[in-house]
Amino acid sequence: MRALCLGPEGPFVDTRFRPRLRPGEARLGLRLGGVCATDLELVKGYMGFEGVVGHEFVADVLDAPDPRLVGQRVVGEINASCGRCPTCQAGRPTHCPGRTVLGIVGRDGAFSDEFSLPTGNLHVVPAGVSDEAAVFVEPLAAACRIVEQVHVRPTDRVVVLGLGRLGQLCARVLALSGAAVSGVARSASKLALLPACIEPVAAEDADSLAGADIVVDCTGSPEGLAIATRMVRPGGTLVMKTTVHDLGPASPTAWVVDEVTLVGSRCGPFAPALRLLAAGLVDPTPLITARLPLEDGLEALERARAPGGLKVLLDARG
Amino acid sequence: MRALCLGPEGPFVDTRFRPRLRPGEARLGLRLGGVCATDLELVKGYMGFEGVVGHEFVADVLDAPDPRLVGQRVVGEINASCGRCPTCQAGRPTHCPGRTVLGIVGRDGAFSDEFSLPTGNLHVVPAGVSDEAAVFVEPLAAACRIVEQVHVRPTDRVVVLGLGRLGQLCARVLALSGAAVSGVARSASKLALLPACIEPVAAEDADSLAGADIVVDCTGSPEGLAIATRMVRPGGTLVMKTTVHDLGPASPTAWVVDEVTLVGSRCGPFAPALRLLAAGLVDPTPLITARLPLEDGLEALERARAPGGLKVLLDARG
Repeated sequence: MRALCLGPEGPFVDTRFRPRLRPGEARLGLRLGGVCATDLELVKGYMGFEGVVGHEFVADVLDAPDPRLVGQRVVGEINASCGRCPTCQAGRPTHCPGRTVLGIVGRDGAFSDEFSLPTGNLHVVPAGVSDEAAVFVEPLAAACRIVEQVHVRPTDRVVVLGLGRLGQLCARVLALSGAAVSGVARSASKLALLPACIEPVAAEDADSLAGADIVVDCTGSPEGLAIATRMVRPGGTLVMKTTVHDLGPASPTAWVVDEVTLVGSRCGPFAPALRLLAAGLVDPTPLITARLPLEDGLEALERARAPGGLKVLLDARG
Repeated sequence: MRALCLGPEGPFVDTRFRPRLRPGEARLGLRLGGVCATDLELVKGYMGFEGVVGHEFVADVLDAPDPRLVGQRVVGEINASCGRCPTCQAGRPTHCPGRTVLGIVGRDGAFSDEFSLPTGNLHVVPAGVSDEAAVFVEPLAAACRIVEQVHVRPTDRVVVLGLGRLGQLCARVLALSGAAVSGVARSASKLALLPACIEPVAAEDADSLAGADIVVDCTGSPEGLAIATRMVRPGGTLVMKTTVHDLGPASPTAWVVDEVTLVGSRCGPFAPALRLLAAGLVDPTPLITARLPLEDGLEALERARAPGGLKVLLDARG
């Protein structure tokens, strides 16, 4: 079997991989995987992860404790929680301190012909949703997390900073609220990808958006957080959708004086994301910039890292 | 008349001060003023303010466009807003970009025998509330701002970091929710001031409070923000009640991974603060550590700055 692995020397493709399936979990056969910015960070050493990478996938259930799941086409939530600790019992399983995370923390990921997840993590993909759309469920759920955490009003002015893979999806979900959504990027090609309901704004014109009710920082850079801080109105909300390791030129003083609410936002709910895809309310497939067979995983990482690269898929079918 | 002023060379007492009263505003005669940490910051050069300092006060209305106000004992909101700009019209007058702020931005403050404020800023003090309690309305309103912004549940574990003037009031207001409130400080004397319903925790034992639902940072230091970040549970709320100019050892990464909500919090509503004082639900007077006549303003600043100094009052009566 094939797998895209990360070892102490960096990423490599193992063509004689033997999956480490966990007892009691569903055995999954990969159909499509999607390369995420987090995968690229892991390759650079973030989190010190070693093993199979990948957490965005659509797969077939090959075997499962619940026989009704076998043969189904599924996507899966990436946090495998204990279900018993106080955090899980309080309804916050994605923050379980003992959790493993698919392809990120203590658990082999999805970029191999076979892998496993607890059955409770799986969601059956409706027949009308293509593999190419379903592989976006995990990042689309992360975009839905914003509207789970923050009340976006149809009268709000919303700005999404950074139109990479995640920013594109966040802008599309936020526009469904009826709010006036603007997307900001340096790259003309990324601006051109925005659907007509979202205003494209070049980075050099971003200051014209000052006074926004909600700013979503998807840049992954301290500069992005500083721009977001200048752009949000007093009393507004700044959603931190990507991690930054330091504050750069941003100042916490402005957050207090202007009474800004900052909301850290990570993984989101799968069921709404599947509903949006099934209803055709979000079409993520224009974001696909490359599709490669699983054994070309190293090239897939390169393509995802390259300028202009958005969603790169790994195809394990046929 | 007497006034505690800040000039380019630093603070000084002017005993022949002539108040610059604004036409159309109420003329106020100071009874008591309270020295605030912001006053001490202004003296160090924060905001570049020059003029009469002071924004915590209780005063008599000497003259006003509305004759019913004359002779009343009042406290006053410190932001004087235009009332006409989009921010004011949107119901956020405390963020009016054209606002002046009593003793902080573009307007002489309260530490003089006479000063002025728009009548719309004034609140009559109920007869049962002493001058010594009423002078705390402004910081008590700032404490009430937390529960205006954040839903504090009676089942929450809440930590207040830093038990200076503002932290003491925040802890008292938060405890009224029924939540389990702990107050953290280095100083034994500040811990000893906490009423019995608030758990005193020495700074070296603060790690025992990890997992709190809500952490209110009143330390005014980057270290406080870092401790608060470690202390708040995933999905919890970190209220930034004091300004810090940089992030120090805190990391924004943790805010995203743990999905923390940060809430910048500043000035608050006066009416609830007056109700809490009138009902005897908060007694701020144990926080008074010194009381000096207005002409001893320089000593008052020293006393407020000294270790163990909490609320220092300036008395303009009699």
